[in-house]
Amino acid sequence: MNKTKLVELKKWMETQQVDCAYLSDTTHIAYFTGYASDPHERVLALFIPLEAEAFLFTPALEVEDAQNSSWSGDVFGYLDSENPWEKIAEILKKRLPVSAKNFAVEKGHLVVERMEEMRSAFPNMEFSKDLTPLVQRLQLIKTEDEIKKLYEAGTWADVAFETGFKAVHEGASEQEVIAEIEYELKKRGVSQMSFDTMVLTGKNAASPHGEPGLSKIQKHELVLFDLGVVWNGYNSDATRTISFHQPTEFDEKIYQIVLEAQLAAQDFVKPGVTAEEIDKVARDVITGYGYGEYFNHRLGHGIGTTVHEFPSLVEGNDLVIEEGMCFSIEPGIYIPEKVGVRIEDCVHVTKNGCLPFTNTTKELQVII
Amino acid sequence: MNKTKLVELKKWMETQQVDCAYLSDTTHIAYFTGYASDPHERVLALFIPLEAEAFLFTPALEVEDAQNSSWSGDVFGYLDSENPWEKIAEILKKRLPVSAKNFAVEKGHLVVERMEEMRSAFPNMEFSKDLTPLVQRLQLIKTEDEIKKLYEAGTWADVAFETGFKAVHEGASEQEVIAEIEYELKKRGVSQMSFDTMVLTGKNAASPHGEPGLSKIQKHELVLFDLGVVWNGYNSDATRTISFHQPTEFDEKIYQIVLEAQLAAQDFVKPGVTAEEIDKVARDVITGYGYGEYFNHRLGHGIGTTVHEFPSLVEGNDLVIEEGMCFSIEPGIYIPEKVGVRIEDCVHVTKNGCLPFTNTTKELQVII
Repeated sequence: MNKTKLVELKKWMETQQVDCAYLSDTTHIAYFTGYASDPHERVLALFIPLEAEAFLFTPALEVEDAQNSSWSGDVFGYLDSENPWEKIAEILKKRLPVSAKNFAVEKGHLVVERMEEMRSAFPNMEFSKDLTPLVQRLQLIKTEDEIKKLYEAGTWADVAFETGFKAVHEGASEQEVIAEIEYELKKRGVSQMSFDTMVLTGKNAASPHGEPGLSKIQKHELVLFDLGVVWNGYNSDATRTISFHQPTEFDEKIYQIVLEAQLAAQDFVKPGVTAEEIDKVARDVITGYGYGEYFNHRLGHGIGTTVHEFPSLVEGNDLVIEEGMCFSIEPGIYIPEKVGVRIEDCVHVTKNGCLPFTNTTKELQVII
Repeated sequence: MNKTKLVELKKWMETQQVDCAYLSDTTHIAYFTGYASDPHERVLALFIPLEAEAFLFTPALEVEDAQNSSWSGDVFGYLDSENPWEKIAEILKKRLPVSAKNFAVEKGHLVVERMEEMRSAFPNMEFSKDLTPLVQRLQLIKTEDEIKKLYEAGTWADVAFETGFKAVHEGASEQEVIAEIEYELKKRGVSQMSFDTMVLTGKNAASPHGEPGLSKIQKHELVLFDLGVVWNGYNSDATRTISFHQPTEFDEKIYQIVLEAQLAAQDFVKPGVTAEEIDKVARDVITGYGYGEYFNHRLGHGIGTTVHEFPSLVEGNDLVIEEGMCFSIEPGIYIPEKVGVRIEDCVHVTKNGCLPFTNTTKELQVII
């Protein structure tokens, strides 16, 4: 349960004249309450009335787990055969003043259907206030404790790379290498990957969102690893590209350009620069070598309780970087039908620069 | 690309006077187009104008993959530095008549923020029509080809059980057993699980949404396995509970009640009965033995391109079951701090009954 952030949220509610906040995003609910769960299509919600106690509303079968979490407020449950909105309206009636009129919701998460159900259950309330930018802002600067968890998640990514590199051999399929990586991690207690582990070989890596399959690793091909784990609710996300036997001259050239871009951006990061400036530093390196058109995505994204969050390192984002922000730096060059290289570390911004959560070497590894 | 279903969708648009449909749910986009992708926070959309060609709108880095999929219509991309809604408005201007006024959106998927962005980009359009119930209905009756894929996904779940049962030994942790299961599947080409595999031992299984960890399997405890894979875009989902060494008399009694409920419901399924009647058959068995309060979730959910979809087998749902519907039948008894048993097969409804996609025995397996 994150009391400090709940206090900040209530302060915002006061200034915005919000009578009740409704959090629906499960990662945000976990952030504020300490209770993490995926209720699928069922309703899991955190209601925070301005002038009464906040409460969790969960499917009946989760009430006990929620009560056993670090959340110390009330927990109410509903059965699959009950209408959740009626129950919510009943509970809130006792916790909101008759004059209450402003609900704040997470517009970046709440689906239109639920919004309409809320409108029916509370016909006299307004729903124009948006919690999404506030929560993004509250999560933007990580605390020491959060940074510690992100380091731990990063260390597991390093274990994953080490395992994956060892699993590379002639004829091994992408899926086999993934199986070895996840086996090692899960055996050791990692229960969840941040996203489906990616191992892409040769030209498969030229599609930045390529899907691994039964393609076999061949000599003199590059192999791209993009992976991360969820650890204590915090994510890691890192990419390394290695060479199986000596790379071709061309592939090595592309690799060195991406590495130069990645290191230049990482060196540039410090409090005071803007998000788009960091993107530009990496992009200028790649464009300078004539490959700008093959770097067709933003430089990076924030990381924390979700694997993609604020800030976005992209042209047009003039957000000023501050100490404690955490994000990925992941330039890439993808030449269709030829080769794909991406190198990525997530970093946290320090007083004078930044430090990565992952420490696997970025020098081109040639695996024989 | 699913031409038949696209035609049905257009017919509905005509009767509803919808000028353009906007699909945002990636599993639904995959269902209609054959292009499957998770764009995270980026925009991936299928636009279907009533009187012009449909097109896919994707992040720039996915355009090539989308063009190489079975989708034969246009694909437009946008860069991270561009405003996607401006580009969409530009393209649609050429494909919609000036008189166009009705958009249909997926209210069950589209978030309020995107809805508001759409409203700004198309200030003269109405967005009251909802595609969600239509898509749910279109997906409700599975084709022969879909049922074939669901069988294949089910067969992988059987492989998972076999692997998992073999991995059970004294002192093995839940996570170790999960690691063995996923290793076997991923090595053999399964790229994605339907959800995080669950192996829960002893009283951990008494929480129906419990989270596996480093708890070690002990003699004379029940072990619950809930798992599934995604195969060719279709999901499996099945649960077995086994005993490590002889079960206690009480645990065996609970097991036999759940089994009786599961088989009674499965035997009862045929075209013409209702969703809530099936739930009641299983619930009555469990309630008859005095454990009704410990079966605190619906009996089942639909399965297909998503692991939880229509229909819901729950009190209050009077949907009449038809041939080709596919859903889970998963009664359970969860006695806090004591024991948890769930048995689940997903089935497809046939002319006279139903058949399960998974064939691992449901007789209590005692593993020594």
